[in-house]
Amino acid sequence: MIEKKYTDLITIPDQSTIVIGLSGGPDSVFLLHLLATVQSKKQLRLIAAHLDHQWRPNSYKDVTFCQQICNGLNIPLIIAQASNITLSRKHSGSQEDLGRQLRRTFFEKLAQEHNADAIALAHHFDDQMETFFMRMIRGTTLTGLTGMEKKDGLYWRPLLDLSKQEILDLLNKHKLKYIIDPSNQSSDFLRNRIRNNVLPALKNCDSRFESNFERMLKQLQETELFLEETTQQAYDTIVQDNNILNIKVLKQKKPFLQKRLLLLWLYKSQMPFTISERFINEIITFLMHERGGFHKMYASWGIEKKQHYAQIKAISLSDNSNSST
Amino acid sequence: MIEKKYTDLITIPDQSTIVIGLSGGPDSVFLLHLLATVQSKKQLRLIAAHLDHQWRPNSYKDVTFCQQICNGLNIPLIIAQASNITLSRKHSGSQEDLGRQLRRTFFEKLAQEHNADAIALAHHFDDQMETFFMRMIRGTTLTGLTGMEKKDGLYWRPLLDLSKQEILDLLNKHKLKYIIDPSNQSSDFLRNRIRNNVLPALKNCDSRFESNFERMLKQLQETELFLEETTQQAYDTIVQDNNILNIKVLKQKKPFLQKRLLLLWLYKSQMPFTISERFINEIITFLMHERGGFHKMYASWGIEKKQHYAQIKAISLSDNSNSST
Repeated sequence: MIEKKYTDLITIPDQSTIVIGLSGGPDSVFLLHLLATVQSKKQLRLIAAHLDHQWRPNSYKDVTFCQQICNGLNIPLIIAQASNITLSRKHSGSQEDLGRQLRRTFFEKLAQEHNADAIALAHHFDDQMETFFMRMIRGTTLTGLTGMEKKDGLYWRPLLDLSKQEILDLLNKHKLKYIIDPSNQSSDFLRNRIRNNVLPALKNCDSRFESNFERMLKQLQETELFLEETTQQAYDTIVQDNNILNIKVLKQKKPFLQKRLLLLWLYKSQMPFTISERFINEIITFLMHERGGFHKMYASWGIEKKQHYAQIKAISLSDNSNSST
Repeated sequence: MIEKKYTDLITIPDQSTIVIGLSGGPDSVFLLHLLATVQSKKQLRLIAAHLDHQWRPNSYKDVTFCQQICNGLNIPLIIAQASNITLSRKHSGSQEDLGRQLRRTFFEKLAQEHNADAIALAHHFDDQMETFFMRMIRGTTLTGLTGMEKKDGLYWRPLLDLSKQEILDLLNKHKLKYIIDPSNQSSDFLRNRIRNNVLPALKNCDSRFESNFERMLKQLQETELFLEETTQQAYDTIVQDNNILNIKVLKQKKPFLQKRLLLLWLYKSQMPFTISERFINEIITFLMHERGGFHKMYASWGIEKKQHYAQIKAISLSDNSNSST
């Protein structure tokens, strides 16, 4: 039984159904035990989910380990192979990104099938710090720097305030077994290079680094929340039903807000690709220009502009050859 | 003669008077030569300023070096000793901060005496990155992360987009002499620990780190500018002449904006101390409470609240013992 201080992290309503991402590593094993500790009291329905990435020839050992641990806790385990997962949108990133997208697709499918209230992930504060620097190194915005949220749609990260060391200490204290994924040590991955080199250098600079970083992150998150609310308020005055955008009102906004408004507009239209800054600037140029018309943005999407209004439209395959600008 | 690509960094109007901070190190020596290159063409009046910090027994050698280089360029040099500088506000920081405050006090006094248009400082892009991480390590806000500006009141930083390596290469190419301050190597200083350990670790993670960081910084600066403009607009509706703040209107704003508004209010009242987050929260609690009265904030300052209005007031020494919460 894990002590109350930690089970209090499980803030989800009683009788919830929860899909738990289980790799077999220390973090997800601790999360599984934590949820199992409160399961009967909170009447939770728990479903563990393990994706076999098939990156290593002996990955079946992880599957066996997860099966044993779930059997012991009497929690059903659902296993899938990465080669059987079909991504809904094209993948264009690192192997880490691919793994992440495959897991999310698998977890979301499961959550839907079981009508789950949440997908619990074992991200902790060290992950949060690593994510910050990964995004910085790749070039990002304030939104990117603010990191992962404890609650983000279906996703739920109850361990986000715990450090990796706290989790390892707890596993040790309660004699809970876990496996170590050798790919976590490899310096092929950007995340591992940050973990092994950048974060130790920062901690060496000042012993208060971690707590100061946490405080900074909280400040950045508050700033981002204010910007999100401000953008949403302006959005409601600019975009009508059917996602029709009023260019005249958009023009009255500051350039920074224009960009965020367009990002939100594209996001709500469920663009099937990542939107770069260059791309947003291209759209602004098109919208601000006097001439109307159709601006093709991607193989199957474009923006139609009539007078002061713009709308995102799908291009059918037969139209495709006629698109202009 | 330094080539046009670099002298184009000197964007200041013709016939300006410029005080140049000159330590004798590579950055400020390059800046001095750069300004000397365009001096006659732009009819600039240049005054070099060297503060002898008196941290090292042989610091007189730096003074001699600066004097030689200025004689060679026919630029007047003004020298001061740190022990003769009186700070206008109490110092409470590291030795680096103290040095910075002493230099600024000296430069500003000189600028005033000579009716200067700008104080030119030799900060470059590596300084900008180091400042980012120094502030992160100490815990900061978005404002803190956005770093130094090219133009900030009287201060002007023409080299801010150049890297340290570019400056060293140029000095080498033009056979320009400079001195090396041994304190720049010492790992006693946080800035040096960042320079020697953190930044190399980040550059090792990804060769595009520097350009991606620059892009991120630009994005953060745009975000900060939007927030500054938004705050100033709200400020104009909330604060009347004589810095009287309308609490009723303040209450209608989002908590994040309230904090920024109060920071601006205190800043414009020229508070003689650094304002912490805890301090802002204390003021918000006082202002939001129904009860009026006087809230002492610092030895000689307080906020007076009458109905919906608040005002910052100095406490005279005779009042001091009677002040209450």
